[in-house]
Amino acid sequence: ALGQRLRKLLLEEDLFIHPLAELFLYHASRTQHVMERIKPLIKEGVVVICDRFMDSTFAYQGYGRGIDWNIIRSLDEISRQGLKPHITFLIDIEPEVGLSRHSGRNLDRLERESLDFHRAVREGYLELARLEPERFRILKGDEPIEHIHSIILKVVKDLGL
Amino acid sequence: ALGQRLRKLLLEEDLFIHPLAELFLYHASRTQHVMERIKPLIKEGVVVICDRFMDSTFAYQGYGRGIDWNIIRSLDEISRQGLKPHITFLIDIEPEVGLSRHSGRNLDRLERESLDFHRAVREGYLELARLEPERFRILKGDEPIEHIHSIILKVVKDLGL
Repeated sequence: ALGQRLRKLLLEEDLFIHPLAELFLYHASRTQHVMERIKPLIKEGVVVICDRFMDSTFAYQGYGRGIDWNIIRSLDEISRQGLKPHITFLIDIEPEVGLSRHSGRNLDRLERESLDFHRAVREGYLELARLEPERFRILKGDEPIEHIHSIILKVVKDLGL
Repeated sequence: ALGQRLRKLLLEEDLFIHPLAELFLYHASRTQHVMERIKPLIKEGVVVICDRFMDSTFAYQGYGRGIDWNIIRSLDEISRQGLKPHITFLIDIEPEVGLSRHSGRNLDRLERESLDFHRAVREGYLELARLEPERFRILKGDEPIEHIHSIILKVVKDLGL
């Protein structure tokens, strides 16, 4: 479907995509996902879990690419159609450590970016968490996976969804 | 390049694209075109001629798909980056006649839309021309091509570019 086609396009190694075009493409992908999948599921009463959502755009395109957050905010409002996560887990880790975990497979267009880019993206995520402390839970990505899992499970259970 | 890839995607016959996602995709394509091609050419002093630009989005996605013009306007401001045509030729024709000229080749995703869709798109273009009479020249698309050509040539020469 469209989402997969766009993801493929966005992560292709050697396609030149201007940062603003990239921003529009991520919003195209998001709004298709929201309208086609998430909204109908929520209407049915399903709890929806997303790996990356609106925050990634602010972190990657805003902090990473340097696009004004006001521009991102105006597109974000249109593409999300009023939807917002009840809770967001930010699994934080030093970019050096995070990137080293990828060894063994090919890196995509974003992963190939400089360490400075990934540091800026991390700063973006931490800033988002500072701006909305009630929505974010920051977890330490270098702790054992079982530990992270148990915290997420507890927080979600306490939400009482 | 990206523009061609997006055009292909947008005109594919049987891909479901939500109207809002379609809107974002056209803006992605436009901003890439503006930043990568048009802006550098204008900086060099070249006169740029586009077959379709910003107005098509208002006509197709606004009047055709029914998306609020305010939404389109906010995306349009970002994607055009301050660029606007000095003059726009609207070659107007009855949708029935226009569509009949396509006979002999396969129709793409937009051309396959209903006659009502194409009538609404035409209304959109005419409304745009009413809103900015100083930018638009409406030409009759059922007149001989030589006649249309000579009018365009005269208007462009009078611009003194």
